[in-house]
Amino acid sequence: MSFHILLTNDDGVHAPGLLALAKSLADVGQVTVLAPDRNWSASGHVKTMHRPLRAWSTRLTDGSEALACDGAPSDCVAMGLLGLVSPQVDLVVSGINPSANLGHDVTYSGTVTAAMEAAIAGIPGIAVSLDSHADHNGQVDYGAAAEIARQLADRVKVDGLPEGIFLNVNVPYLDLGEIAGISLTRQGLRVYRDALVERRDPRGRPYYWIGGGAPSGIAEPGTDFWALQEGLVSITPLQLDLTASGEMASLDAWRLDIPSHD
Amino acid sequence: MSFHILLTNDDGVHAPGLLALAKSLADVGQVTVLAPDRNWSASGHVKTMHRPLRAWSTRLTDGSEALACDGAPSDCVAMGLLGLVSPQVDLVVSGINPSANLGHDVTYSGTVTAAMEAAIAGIPGIAVSLDSHADHNGQVDYGAAAEIARQLADRVKVDGLPEGIFLNVNVPYLDLGEIAGISLTRQGLRVYRDALVERRDPRGRPYYWIGGGAPSGIAEPGTDFWALQEGLVSITPLQLDLTASGEMASLDAWRLDIPSHD
Repeated sequence: MSFHILLTNDDGVHAPGLLALAKSLADVGQVTVLAPDRNWSASGHVKTMHRPLRAWSTRLTDGSEALACDGAPSDCVAMGLLGLVSPQVDLVVSGINPSANLGHDVTYSGTVTAAMEAAIAGIPGIAVSLDSHADHNGQVDYGAAAEIARQLADRVKVDGLPEGIFLNVNVPYLDLGEIAGISLTRQGLRVYRDALVERRDPRGRPYYWIGGGAPSGIAEPGTDFWALQEGLVSITPLQLDLTASGEMASLDAWRLDIPSHD
Repeated sequence: MSFHILLTNDDGVHAPGLLALAKSLADVGQVTVLAPDRNWSASGHVKTMHRPLRAWSTRLTDGSEALACDGAPSDCVAMGLLGLVSPQVDLVVSGINPSANLGHDVTYSGTVTAAMEAAIAGIPGIAVSLDSHADHNGQVDYGAAAEIARQLADRVKVDGLPEGIFLNVNVPYLDLGEIAGISLTRQGLRVYRDALVERRDPRGRPYYWIGGGAPSGIAEPGTDFWALQEGLVSITPLQLDLTASGEMASLDAWRLDIPSHD
């Protein structure tokens, strides 16, 4: 039986990054696209339970078949793995996001939480993002990132991924021949420059934008930020367990007890 | 200057669990409530940037002042910390959620991601959930959980929290005198029983619910699930860094290189 890849993204089913990935992954196995019908950037790890979800047939711009859905990227993965697509899925890939997902971006990112949703279901997941800073007049070249993703999916097809682990892949915006190599990295520290921007509506009432400058990162050696800065592909293995094991001792020293025991 | 606590939740500003927490935290410092105007359960870690956000004055059912917002819990925290409320916030508390947030629930949970948003901004964050299984005809008793939260906030007021760490607190549904103690725990393994449920609309077209049985957990000693099972309050310190450090060696053995280098 062939290797079955479920492909989604957070920019919507008609995004060019998804098409590039669908084409390259076709060399690895059977690809089913099930992606949101609209943009879900910074939407986080969603499980839609308060409303029903729709899914319908559509076509990518090259004419190939796909499914669109009115849920979040993680909903698309959940629906796919719960049986909306067949045969059973062997790998979930999400992307290609046109901008990097680094540092603390990972829990906000629809691209990354789609891969997280796969890991929760016990299926290997890979999130792929391209560090293309500007909009390039909408003409982003996804070629190198799609090729890296193909190679990685090929490897996961053979070796799988450890239980509970998923991969956050970020590719520098360079031609394949200019990329310096591939680096296993740790999640770096994002520096957000968000600001609350107040505006007034035509009736004089205030409303607010979460605005401000673009976030940057601290490019300590070994981090995802550092890898991109060095022209390397960054592959960060992420886990579902967020426990801060290193802090248990300091908190244990609090000797907490319930109030009535005092 | 007084200690300023920003309080939010994911059930909406008029939820009784929030009122109970607001009252108990008033003993610890000045409390500002800034909470969603509706339920955001399982909405994940959201940063709303594609639309503006509204915030307006409202009152809790006891008549005290509060702010409602049409964003997610994490948006409420972001807006509060970016200057919508003053003075500067010293602690963010989220809850009391009427059901537990355990295992992999943490990245889906609006309650927990609100505390995560605080940690990203460098402010201590505490998420408080109560393991009240049934709906108790809407008459959930939040007394014990509110008292535990008060004690914990008092401690964080004195000692702070380590950088990048936030607390996920789950309280068993028992009277304060029946609670066996407080346990520092690690995140356990959630077992989801989601199923895709197909329905037909009046026009015969399919739509889907993510349904199925309630999730359970694997109550290994030392986990959040285990603590509740033993009648203990579970306090899990969580971190922003999701790097699977233990898996670096196995992935390093892949010796990945970019395709053109082969």
